Amino acid sequence: MRAAVMRNSQLVIDTVPDPTPGPGEVLVKTLACGICGSDLHALKHADKMVEAARESGVPFVLDVRRDIVMGHEFCAEVVDYGPGTSAAASVGDRVVSMPIVFRNGMFDTVGYSNDAPGGYGELMRLAAALVLPVPNGLSTEHAALTEPMAVGLHAVNKARMETNDAPLVIGCGPVGLAVIAALKLRGAAPIVAADYSPMRRRLAETLGADIVVDPARKPAVAAFLEHSNFRPAVIFECVGVPGMLRQIMRDAPLGSRIVVAGVCMEDDMIKPAFGINKELSLQFVLGYTPDEFAGTLQHIAEGRIDVAPLVTGRVALDKVPAAFDELANPEKHAKILVEPWR
Amino acid sequence: MRAAVMRNSQLVIDTVPDPTPGPGEVLVKTLACGICGSDLHALKHADKMVEAARESGVPFVLDVRRDIVMGHEFCAEVVDYGPGTSAAASVGDRVVSMPIVFRNGMFDTVGYSNDAPGGYGELMRLAAALVLPVPNGLSTEHAALTEPMAVGLHAVNKARMETNDAPLVIGCGPVGLAVIAALKLRGAAPIVAADYSPMRRRLAETLGADIVVDPARKPAVAAFLEHSNFRPAVIFECVGVPGMLRQIMRDAPLGSRIVVAGVCMEDDMIKPAFGINKELSLQFVLGYTPDEFAGTLQHIAEGRIDVAPLVTGRVALDKVPAAFDELANPEKHAKILVEPWR
Repeated sequence: MRAAVMRNSQLVIDTVPDPTPGPGEVLVKTLACGICGSDLHALKHADKMVEAARESGVPFVLDVRRDIVMGHEFCAEVVDYGPGTSAAASVGDRVVSMPIVFRNGMFDTVGYSNDAPGGYGELMRLAAALVLPVPNGLSTEHAALTEPMAVGLHAVNKARMETNDAPLVIGCGPVGLAVIAALKLRGAAPIVAADYSPMRRRLAETLGADIVVDPARKPAVAAFLEHSNFRPAVIFECVGVPGMLRQIMRDAPLGSRIVVAGVCMEDDMIKPAFGINKELSLQFVLGYTPDEFAGTLQHIAEGRIDVAPLVTGRVALDKVPAAFDELANPEKHAKILVEPWR
Repeated sequence: MRAAVMRNSQLVIDTVPDPTPGPGEVLVKTLACGICGSDLHALKHADKMVEAARESGVPFVLDVRRDIVMGHEFCAEVVDYGPGTSAAASVGDRVVSMPIVFRNGMFDTVGYSNDAPGGYGELMRLAAALVLPVPNGLSTEHAALTEPMAVGLHAVNKARMETNDAPLVIGCGPVGLAVIAALKLRGAAPIVAADYSPMRRRLAETLGADIVVDPARKPAVAAFLEHSNFRPAVIFECVGVPGMLRQIMRDAPLGSRIVVAGVCMEDDMIKPAFGINKELSLQFVLGYTPDEFAGTLQHIAEGRIDVAPLVTGRVALDKVPAAFDELANPEKHAKILVEPWR
């Protein structure tokens, strides 16, 4: 099959072996696959991701010297089944899935694996037990947004928010926007959101932010405090660059809970004294549960989360490298979808 | 009055002005005051404490160029009242108190202040509203342990432990021992505790640890996992030196909650990827509530927390500098009490 392949820290368009569905798996044709910020990061720092996982005992098997087909935010069409396998979907049905497969007692992440190619290729193998049919009437490109929006729902659930909590979202890239949508869904108000980019601030408002802040004009936490009315602060860190945690811990009010949804792969310097003096907490989050994933699909299908404004581009395989470059500009894009069949 | 004074990052024995109780304050004579690890740290790094507090917006007013009389773990005797003041205790009564006073709408920390001398001096002024009479029959030196033991109770309360949670205490200095006592009090089991020092491991057992670990023989978390039976891990960091958080986050099992009770004043490097990959949380803690402080006094008075093994030394004022040096050796001391009247 044709795919955009990560090879020696570069993206190249090449033909690679078709994936073969094993028992309990389905073969699918990729219809659309979002480009995730983590993929941009992995292209540069895959070795660091692997090293951090290995050092901390997470069973994450990836050989960065071999080909990797990334892409884990997809909508696909069932084309075949593995031996002795049935699934909730029939051949021809459109499906989404958590990007996880199981083989030989090990799990593997679709799109961050040498053996489970992701949605930047024409074909994928998925776990039959995890595929979810796309409800009638939901477009393929909106269904493909299930994965990133589920990340936001999970982050908000992990925050264990109470009625009186006041949320602040720092960073309005796809993760921050997904958090805003999930906060809106649960009725949190006012939702304060901060980003340097005017386009991202507009998207934040579209997704449900009540107040948007340009940190270049006023520090995010200072602007937040004008609206939070001394309610307990829940701060979502959705930037993921070194130094952000230190800055948020410095500025956060007493007793703040900080949910770390941004993905910072580098070492990061904090000042524990900030945390101690103000009894802060940090909750690091990753992914979502199967329930949260399925629930997000329903929320999108039934119009409770409007993902339409997020899709700002669609590209064929040969334009994936250029799309990676374009995503560096926050004024131009939120989510670009790869359509390998184009 | 005579006092051990922090002056230019040194402890000197000198005569300083007697404190004068204001409205709402009582004057007390210090009977016994424990030396806290934070005081050892403050002697070297008071400037860093002040800088961190100021940078993060905590109203902590301390001029390190002026004299400071430290000591915030005390039992004292009421000798006088400020103008128009009455208190829960009479002249001659023994009392303990949270080390906080209020003046001109500002709060000040007894023992970390230029104006509110602590228990390394013969006299203190305390807030009349905060003094608690020592119950009959409780010795002065055990009452003086109320403050450090309340720190442990608070850390355990902030952990929001559930029935099935499995605790690990890393570091068995006074903070770790107080955490162990509080865990025992709430019936958590087994309590696993780790420290390099044989004496501290013995004290940990005395205070209630079920399993003690020498990290030189086996990493603390690895030993803990042999006993936790896959129950959710709650890890109490009671060491407070740079690098501990990174190491605990690296070793902690999936979903661990880490309670940061150790006081690390330096900048500290963490790897967020460890937290993200395993969805860890960090809860920084400080101090206690008035209820927790009063409750700890009752627990000690009624024998539910046995502090007797913790007291390993008693010194007069002129021996305070030597006691600070001796506390660097974990084999020799847990808690040294200063008795300024000696």
